[in-house]
Amino acid sequence: MTIIDNTQINLIKTNIDVNDRGLAYGDGLFETIACVNGELHNWHLHWKRLILGAERLSLMIPDENFLLDSINSKLFQNNDLNTQNHSINKVIKVIITRGKGGRGYQFPQQPRSTLIISIHNWPEKPVDDYQNGIKLKVCQTCLAPQPALAGIKHLNRLEQVLARNELNGSDYQDGIMQVCPETSVSSSDSKIIEATSSNIFFVKNNQLFTPKIDTCGVQGTIRQEIISLTRKMAIKLEQGYYVLDDLSDASEVFLTNSIFGVVPVLSITDSDNIQRFSAQQNPAKISAKLSNIINKALNRPELMSDIILR
Amino acid sequence: MTIIDNTQINLIKTNIDVNDRGLAYGDGLFETIACVNGELHNWHLHWKRLILGAERLSLMIPDENFLLDSINSKLFQNNDLNTQNHSINKVIKVIITRGKGGRGYQFPQQPRSTLIISIHNWPEKPVDDYQNGIKLKVCQTCLAPQPALAGIKHLNRLEQVLARNELNGSDYQDGIMQVCPETSVSSSDSKIIEATSSNIFFVKNNQLFTPKIDTCGVQGTIRQEIISLTRKMAIKLEQGYYVLDDLSDASEVFLTNSIFGVVPVLSITDSDNIQRFSAQQNPAKISAKLSNIINKALNRPELMSDIILR
Repeated sequence: MTIIDNTQINLIKTNIDVNDRGLAYGDGLFETIACVNGELHNWHLHWKRLILGAERLSLMIPDENFLLDSINSKLFQNNDLNTQNHSINKVIKVIITRGKGGRGYQFPQQPRSTLIISIHNWPEKPVDDYQNGIKLKVCQTCLAPQPALAGIKHLNRLEQVLARNELNGSDYQDGIMQVCPETSVSSSDSKIIEATSSNIFFVKNNQLFTPKIDTCGVQGTIRQEIISLTRKMAIKLEQGYYVLDDLSDASEVFLTNSIFGVVPVLSITDSDNIQRFSAQQNPAKISAKLSNIINKALNRPELMSDIILR
Repeated sequence: MTIIDNTQINLIKTNIDVNDRGLAYGDGLFETIACVNGELHNWHLHWKRLILGAERLSLMIPDENFLLDSINSKLFQNNDLNTQNHSINKVIKVIITRGKGGRGYQFPQQPRSTLIISIHNWPEKPVDDYQNGIKLKVCQTCLAPQPALAGIKHLNRLEQVLARNELNGSDYQDGIMQVCPETSVSSSDSKIIEATSSNIFFVKNNQLFTPKIDTCGVQGTIRQEIISLTRKMAIKLEQGYYVLDDLSDASEVFLTNSIFGVVPVLSITDSDNIQRFSAQQNPAKISAKLSNIINKALNRPELMSDIILR
């Protein structure tokens, strides 16, 4: 059991001890939660992922009520949540680490987890991204296969940092990450996992596909929401192993993210600068249906199913 | 060029901003340096590895003089280094992160690196460990192959944290880590990389062997020192890919670490609890020779070449 007596939690406001294991080793978890009109969007999915992560890392986390109370008091304290202010959207970031420790990888004998809650401005995203789609580049930085850490949102994020930095100065809005190739496999045959901060879905013959998150990658909350929605909406969904070629004749490709919702993809360019997917001829039917629920709840523009992306 | 104008370095004393990317993503590097009789042991190798890491991560680091001055003033300030006190040994930990940033993986537009220097007590290690050797267990937590991060000492250390935690409550002093197996390979055929906080060497027919650090693992400073020493001492050394079976008939196995020096291995037990190496019949000739130089410089016991480990 990883949920603990809340007196063992150290709630940090602005500064963290330099001996905290979150800094020393990335020994902890985080969640980025949309707060829309005063409500935490998909809270149950964030909480579920926190529990999964805590089990994997044998990390002690506060109980759900303590965490929710701490988030709410932080929102009130920042004047972000009050009766006059319910229409303001915010991003809430929660970090939980194994707390202060000495040198050395072994757990502290009496660990006291660190809890950090910070409130961030709601990032705007151009309406054009939702109407016309975003351009993606395939990153050269790959994701190393590590089943012990797959799915959870831990603090070891150098791969994403390096991949995202490949896009600096370009007009690509995000990058696709593949699993690092096995010695016997060429990199173009490497499995696609996700984008640097989003999950990826594609549609073929009215069926939805998304990569399995069992060797690496993050189980995004919107990804989880879509898995539930497809059951209710009778949309066929397959989770599997896919390569770039599988996307080339897709009718729709889209990304999902807890803050931005469903974002359509206009094009995918590989690392040799060859365009591997283009949405020009394809109306976005399934992604539009999903955005009608998800983006609406996030105050983001819906996708238009009857307009051809260009 | 990653070395910067030192006015862009933010030297942190005890607390770090919760928005520091070192905490958020493990976006940074560290070094753990032995300070013996007032001298930084193998400083040039630590500095070389910092530069390698900074190049890989496109991280800005202070120039060498600034860093040395900062370490020395921290030592003086702690009263750890003065004319009366030259015989005291300390551990110096240097952390350099990409500094404060907003949410999101992209680099800050005007990054200002964070430098943290902390002084720690010199850890004692039982003389028995040096005389009779330590017991190792093969960890189940594997190292994911990620060439972009191999060799450098970055802040993403969850694999080591999980591996080290497997040994809690056991009488194993360290654990051997293998590369995560490719789908087609059984785990017993996985390459050995290192121990959780040490590099590993073994001897066969008077020749020294150590795993290549090109897919994962850390290029330890004592490992680098040994590579140089073998050239001078005309000891044959091979860096390659080895599995557990390669160690079973070794005449010596030892670990190396910047603080503990050369430590002989008494036995290796695999994850099925089968003993795969035992030093009982083998005098430790090459490790004793190396310890004669390395351990002496670190104020650690030398290994005895004429005594059979038991």
